[in-house]
Amino acid sequence: MGYIVKRVAVLGTTGSIGRQTLEVIDALPGHFSVIGLAGGRNTTLLAEQIEKFQPRFVFHQETKTPPPTTAEYEFLPMEEMARHPEIDLVVIATSGKWGLGPTLAAVRAGKQVALANKESLVMAGGIITAEAKRNGAQIMPVDSEHSAIWQCLEGESGKPSKIILTASGGPFLHYSKAKLAKVTPEQALKHPSWRMGNKVTIDSATLMNKGLEVIEARWLFDIHFDNIRVLIHPQSIVHSMVEFADGSVKAQLGKPDMRLPIQYALSYPERLANPHLPRLDWENIKELTFEPPDLDAFPCLRIAVEAGKRGGTYPAALCGADEIAVQQFLAGKIKFTDIPRLVEQALGEHKAISRPPLEQILAADDWARDKVMQLVGDKS
Amino acid sequence: MGYIVKRVAVLGTTGSIGRQTLEVIDALPGHFSVIGLAGGRNTTLLAEQIEKFQPRFVFHQETKTPPPTTAEYEFLPMEEMARHPEIDLVVIATSGKWGLGPTLAAVRAGKQVALANKESLVMAGGIITAEAKRNGAQIMPVDSEHSAIWQCLEGESGKPSKIILTASGGPFLHYSKAKLAKVTPEQALKHPSWRMGNKVTIDSATLMNKGLEVIEARWLFDIHFDNIRVLIHPQSIVHSMVEFADGSVKAQLGKPDMRLPIQYALSYPERLANPHLPRLDWENIKELTFEPPDLDAFPCLRIAVEAGKRGGTYPAALCGADEIAVQQFLAGKIKFTDIPRLVEQALGEHKAISRPPLEQILAADDWARDKVMQLVGDKS
Repeated sequence: MGYIVKRVAVLGTTGSIGRQTLEVIDALPGHFSVIGLAGGRNTTLLAEQIEKFQPRFVFHQETKTPPPTTAEYEFLPMEEMARHPEIDLVVIATSGKWGLGPTLAAVRAGKQVALANKESLVMAGGIITAEAKRNGAQIMPVDSEHSAIWQCLEGESGKPSKIILTASGGPFLHYSKAKLAKVTPEQALKHPSWRMGNKVTIDSATLMNKGLEVIEARWLFDIHFDNIRVLIHPQSIVHSMVEFADGSVKAQLGKPDMRLPIQYALSYPERLANPHLPRLDWENIKELTFEPPDLDAFPCLRIAVEAGKRGGTYPAALCGADEIAVQQFLAGKIKFTDIPRLVEQALGEHKAISRPPLEQILAADDWARDKVMQLVGDKS
Repeated sequence: MGYIVKRVAVLGTTGSIGRQTLEVIDALPGHFSVIGLAGGRNTTLLAEQIEKFQPRFVFHQETKTPPPTTAEYEFLPMEEMARHPEIDLVVIATSGKWGLGPTLAAVRAGKQVALANKESLVMAGGIITAEAKRNGAQIMPVDSEHSAIWQCLEGESGKPSKIILTASGGPFLHYSKAKLAKVTPEQALKHPSWRMGNKVTIDSATLMNKGLEVIEARWLFDIHFDNIRVLIHPQSIVHSMVEFADGSVKAQLGKPDMRLPIQYALSYPERLANPHLPRLDWENIKELTFEPPDLDAFPCLRIAVEAGKRGGTYPAALCGADEIAVQQFLAGKIKFTDIPRLVEQALGEHKAISRPPLEQILAADDWARDKVMQLVGDKS
């Protein structure tokens, strides 16, 4: 049997997911051809990646110095790369709202879209899933939780009756509110099980990340919020579960390593043997534990789900507010427990619009960023 | 959308699996039509089932009194029922080697075969899977473990790299050999999590059942013995797991209730909502634990896998020897720890034939029964 070489563009190659995507592609020679790379401010790393993968198209942020390489490439904006006819699969690993434009361009062009950018679905899930459906695009989640659900749904003809998103609980599991008020950015950046970027690591510590994932799941799997449940599972072995009409539950398990969900999205519907991927070692897994989240100590999960249920521009405002609150916490300007407080306060003042077009979604995000900055300023 | 009413024959209706099969059918009106029922010695129960389901065909063991009912039916031998053109799906829930003939008849007639009879695949897995392939029959496992694996494999294009069969460990988990020598049939019949017949309950207590399941898995999923692993999981929530080429693992979970795997085989590829089926209650599941089996205290697992690996008539001799040993234990004639001793001794004296036809498989079973009776007689 022959196999298809997929022509891939990776947007956000210098971030954590981007780098791991290229690791996976490198470990599976002959399966993928890297046609496009879009990097961020780390032009030294981008230059190395360009030299290694020799892409035809490159996007780099307009800094004074382009990537220091003599390799030849064509400069192409991210959205054009995302819809280019010579690209089959677009990996969207750009962070924040910068992922929205390329995601929309890729789904409108009917691509296979390996989506690691949370904001696309959280802020504009309605628009993006509708466009994907209309244009025959396939959105393939790269998150470990949504990848788990996707894997569990493969081959099932019916809809899930329930989705159970697992959460490690982060570094502060079982902390009291008083103790949480004193945690430092250094402590918050030490995630017990996952290797991820800074923003998502803090979001994991507040459980905001799980709230954003609930909203993503609502769009990815067309399921009502009431049928999505979050369970704390500190071992991060069960990546999520699905309950079906007959009461049967399927779970996907694996070592906590982002390369596994990345590879599944790249190789789908096939699974490829990759000697670099870790395997579960049942000699050392004694127990898997589960418990409900503490919504009182970690209100971000509740706040996010409420914003998701309200819909309209609320989730966009949630994203913008959280991004600035996390920045301010990392900069030592606010306490860990100020993150939910500021986000909730901003959302309380937000004048939402229902069924917003993209411009208004982005405007809501901007508004919330300003609002949190203003709230922080008022306080200090 | 319309749906198909499946025409079903249930063989072994008065046993535990047979009764639960009829419970499931009764709970899903309009989905199944019971065309045939084959019962055992409990003619009173069989008569009730005949009156309730009004089957066209009935088989009952030739006792002096036929089932006490005035309902009209046509008497039909089990093998004829299994291949009857008006039947789509045959549930084989007869116990012991009596399942072999009907299973073979059903697969030769290209039926959907919901297989609860362990001996069919353990004793004659090579013949039965080859005939199923040749005639386009589909063997659908009814065991919770194999159903779990089957569910995890749905929609997967590649072969599993590993199968992890879970085992509750039975009522004597962590018992020493010395303590096991003193257990009574009453204690052994109290299974901690499953409602099953007597023979399989004792086989669960010795772990022989898990060994037989390893052999079944080898045939059902065409996988090498070395890639099948057994893990003790006392909560009986994870019914089994599959590891794929990329290291991803899928598990199927549910309350320990045989009606779930029975229903899945009946309704496949659909899943049907059934209000009588229990659902996992995550408020009360705190932990799932796993540990390797103690092959020293529970040698039946090792003995069975060895017989499976040797192949030929060894697995048939294993079944015959175990059946008599379990009978003798239940009758109070031998100790619990005599079961593996007698089975191993019989297998040690067995003169096996490779690639045996069905007659020789049945002859090996007979030989082993006589051998164990003789060994028990010699001792007492």
